[in-house]
Amino acid sequence: MAGVRLAARACGIKYKDRSDACLIELAPGTAIAGVFTRSLTASAPVLWCRKALTGGRARAIIINAGNANAFTGAAGTNSVGRVVSAVARKLKCKSREVFVASTGVIGEELPDRQLTGALGGLRADLAADSWPAAAAAIMTTDTYPKGATRQAEIGGVPVTLNGIAKGAGMIAPDMATMLSFVVTDAKIPAKTLQALLKPAADASFNSITVDSDTSTSDTLLLCATGATKHRRVTGPSDPHLRAFRAALGDVLRDLAHQVVRDGEGAQKFVTIEVSGAASRRAARRIGLAIGNSPLVKTAIAGQDPNWGRIVMAVGKAGERADRDRLSIEIGGVAVARDGQVVPGYDEAPVARHMQGRDIHIAVDVGVGRGKATVWTCDLTHGYIDINADYRS
Amino acid sequence: MAGVRLAARACGIKYKDRSDACLIELAPGTAIAGVFTRSLTASAPVLWCRKALTGGRARAIIINAGNANAFTGAAGTNSVGRVVSAVARKLKCKSREVFVASTGVIGEELPDRQLTGALGGLRADLAADSWPAAAAAIMTTDTYPKGATRQAEIGGVPVTLNGIAKGAGMIAPDMATMLSFVVTDAKIPAKTLQALLKPAADASFNSITVDSDTSTSDTLLLCATGATKHRRVTGPSDPHLRAFRAALGDVLRDLAHQVVRDGEGAQKFVTIEVSGAASRRAARRIGLAIGNSPLVKTAIAGQDPNWGRIVMAVGKAGERADRDRLSIEIGGVAVARDGQVVPGYDEAPVARHMQGRDIHIAVDVGVGRGKATVWTCDLTHGYIDINADYRS
Repeated sequence: MAGVRLAARACGIKYKDRSDACLIELAPGTAIAGVFTRSLTASAPVLWCRKALTGGRARAIIINAGNANAFTGAAGTNSVGRVVSAVARKLKCKSREVFVASTGVIGEELPDRQLTGALGGLRADLAADSWPAAAAAIMTTDTYPKGATRQAEIGGVPVTLNGIAKGAGMIAPDMATMLSFVVTDAKIPAKTLQALLKPAADASFNSITVDSDTSTSDTLLLCATGATKHRRVTGPSDPHLRAFRAALGDVLRDLAHQVVRDGEGAQKFVTIEVSGAASRRAARRIGLAIGNSPLVKTAIAGQDPNWGRIVMAVGKAGERADRDRLSIEIGGVAVARDGQVVPGYDEAPVARHMQGRDIHIAVDVGVGRGKATVWTCDLTHGYIDINADYRS
Repeated sequence: MAGVRLAARACGIKYKDRSDACLIELAPGTAIAGVFTRSLTASAPVLWCRKALTGGRARAIIINAGNANAFTGAAGTNSVGRVVSAVARKLKCKSREVFVASTGVIGEELPDRQLTGALGGLRADLAADSWPAAAAAIMTTDTYPKGATRQAEIGGVPVTLNGIAKGAGMIAPDMATMLSFVVTDAKIPAKTLQALLKPAADASFNSITVDSDTSTSDTLLLCATGATKHRRVTGPSDPHLRAFRAALGDVLRDLAHQVVRDGEGAQKFVTIEVSGAASRRAARRIGLAIGNSPLVKTAIAGQDPNWGRIVMAVGKAGERADRDRLSIEIGGVAVARDGQVVPGYDEAPVARHMQGRDIHIAVDVGVGRGKATVWTCDLTHGYIDINADYRS
């Protein structure tokens, strides 16, 4: 894809013998949109990106793994400043066109000289086909790199979207130690890009949960290089954006699913469809209450069709639900209807479904027409292994 | 203690070879107060108790373990009706003086004939000193029975409070599969009793969390038999109630701590003190965000003083906090101050503290004077073992 080049290098911030730094170079005139963590203890890079985003232009994204540069006070802010200046000098662009993302341990100062020291090598390595290397460099506890690509057309002209993501724990809406960078060669102004990004993020990264924890560092950036010439886009409701909007939704959902499938210790991928809620927002909250429940997640890990725990989770969501009209399906089999177990319920086919890797739960709460889908994974011994011993 | 007798029996609802039914008989004229789950899918016994509570009088509480009689539709309501009628007949009291609590599997019909069939034996066994047997009969995944007792005086006359509780998982504020029954021989009208119970429940059972899940069945009942004669209590603000109020707080906190210490798979008891919040409510929410965080809880299980995860949890609580004034102490040792690690931070004493069984975390969020204390436990392999294989 024209207009973007990437490079990855090992600069030894925390990990040995693997790449941990990534530079993304964007063509002059690239527009940028972003969605960030809602954490009130956001990291220094997130604070910088929020500020830089008001300019709407990007020439570079610099990313490191191993250290989140979060809760590092003035030292963290200074560190971001030095990294941004070094990148701006190297690529001859303005500071506010440089975006920064860091992921890893919280509370330790970022050894930024290791990162800036690698800039020369990173620039020399820049190549249009380095997406897989970039996806690998931003990993922390991820077990595989995550990438997705889609084609769309705007006014009959083909455009491409490429995206990468990382994230395996501290994954919950708004958003997680989730970093994702998506670039398209379409020409779309920053304001329109932002309007397209927000709902697509809600239906993807903001609809997944691994462990209900929200990171200080979540960053989703969408860049449009404009390298491909097509008819001018007039605004977010331009009908010519229909295919692009769908492709953007696909890329983000694909990446979000990859994050959940790689959830720390995850053995199963769980789709939770909620219907009959008072609103879409209520449906999503109910879905997340189910997807975040340790008791539901351990039951799934144990391949136990314990639908009583789903009832419990619906009850604790704090959203309107009619206990006597509640219905539950697992793997397409009706388990409960109108607030009680279906007559002659046969657990055998449901138990068989629970033994698979892809689990499907559908819940109708019987009060309205709000719908939402949420994705999560099971809670296993693997999660405890990884997180009871992360730093050592 | 005069005015109350208890009995426990095995009626075989789910468990073999152990008692699973408990009858508490209360003297005529006993006043009752209660606090229940806020779940919107509350169980049939909870719905009954809420209704019966409007009468303010109690003669009996009948409890079973092994089946929660939740999400059982009309069958569950009818089942409660039959149990209540049978107890009322047996003890020659009104139906609305009979309270019911059930804990165990959700979604299966309660075999109430097994419970009513045991009533004759239970009545024959009633004895004033059967508190330990009662505490044992209401256990589910609990590993030990939970009881507490305190003395107080009202107008110079000694009174007693005895309480029992169960609950080890699905424990979160408002409240958990937490059942607790407290009886005093003081003479306190139902309305005053309720006014005393609510704040005491908030500062105890509503300030603990094991796994953030909220049960359909949480029930806390406080009964005053009036068997001891003392000066008349005029209302909740009667100065003669000061010692009683303190004793009630002690009993509930003691029982709540026992529940947390017996949290499923728990190896450590964690006290989280939050100060500097915008309000007491905000402080409690921040404390619960820390106490519910799987990443904080697994770090504690791993004896890892990973205070970055505490920062993360403060950030996700959604309450006002000043990132640059945030301070954290672990085991009385300052770890972070004013938004960054303390100069020359020595992890050794903190790491030693993390190896103990009682972990103390203090967080000041730097915006106000709101304070709260929350208690939780660590998240271990034991939790997964218990919950991935509960029904089989």
